[in-house]
Amino acid sequence: MKNKNRVFIATSLDGYIADKNGGIDWLDSIPEINQIDTGYNKFMSEVDALVMGRSTFETVCGFDIDWPYQKPVFVMSRSMTEIPEKFKDKAQLVKGTLAEILEQIHKKGYHRLYIDGGNVIQSFLKEDLIDDMIITVIPILLGNGIPLFADLPKPLNFECKKSIVFLDKIVQNHFIRRKT
Amino acid sequence: MKNKNRVFIATSLDGYIADKNGGIDWLDSIPEINQIDTGYNKFMSEVDALVMGRSTFETVCGFDIDWPYQKPVFVMSRSMTEIPEKFKDKAQLVKGTLAEILEQIHKKGYHRLYIDGGNVIQSFLKEDLIDDMIITVIPILLGNGIPLFADLPKPLNFECKKSIVFLDKIVQNHFIRRKT
Repeated sequence: MKNKNRVFIATSLDGYIADKNGGIDWLDSIPEINQIDTGYNKFMSEVDALVMGRSTFETVCGFDIDWPYQKPVFVMSRSMTEIPEKFKDKAQLVKGTLAEILEQIHKKGYHRLYIDGGNVIQSFLKEDLIDDMIITVIPILLGNGIPLFADLPKPLNFECKKSIVFLDKIVQNHFIRRKT
Repeated sequence: MKNKNRVFIATSLDGYIADKNGGIDWLDSIPEINQIDTGYNKFMSEVDALVMGRSTFETVCGFDIDWPYQKPVFVMSRSMTEIPEKFKDKAQLVKGTLAEILEQIHKKGYHRLYIDGGNVIQSFLKEDLIDDMIITVIPILLGNGIPLFADLPKPLNFECKKSIVFLDKIVQNHFIRRKT
């Protein structure tokens, strides 16, 4: 099966995934978004596993909800030595370079990966390892915060294949990496 | 007539309007864009005048083409003392606070304004003076550059009313300021 690394994420209109304190309350600036289908379930059905960093993992662990993923979760972290007991059946730690980590995950039979969290997405982009990105823009200008994108060793071309406006407010753009 | 301040601009996928050296060569990463109608003429027909900063004005003056605007151009600049002789029938200098500048322009009968250039757009956003923004996203990640958006004293809510994909590559999103 072809390996694919995919992103599905929400940003503010000015490209932030969290405010400067890491908060995501602004995602609720349009509360109706929780009542509509923005394609998350379809996207999830198209991936085999998730790859995230420590910070995203710990955020998810801290949510006061049941574990939200039905697919295996791989946590990339240099600093973490093991997954907390409570989550050992939910997630596994992976270490090494991105190439090594991907090799480990592919060997286990997971090829279509949901790459999540700002730092991890940025690391993948730095090595040109992202194939497509579905970015939902919550139309608020925050003014500052934690950006989705960061420095790159070289520019990367994408193509926008699809765009959907939800609720006359939110726009979701689907970008595919163009390799020429 | 109702006063309106509007933006029509292209950014990279990571939100830059120019690369770190001020260059805009990357706008040509999809050269076919010059052969299609992205709504610029329609937008221009809906504004009465342009407002830009010194840097955008000097960039336009430097283009090796005929003067591109059929509408009056107001150049906001603290440092400029007069418009160069060659462009005196094309543009006029305006000074003062944004409120003062807008009052001057409105008094001359221009109410629907095309606000152009990163610094000027940022100044207008800081005072919550932008009514709508048509942003064309050229799907390239530059990694760094001159951003369209900057710090704000408070978050600003918009609504995306329309989105168009051009050439299966470029997406143009139309955001309207939501005041509640």
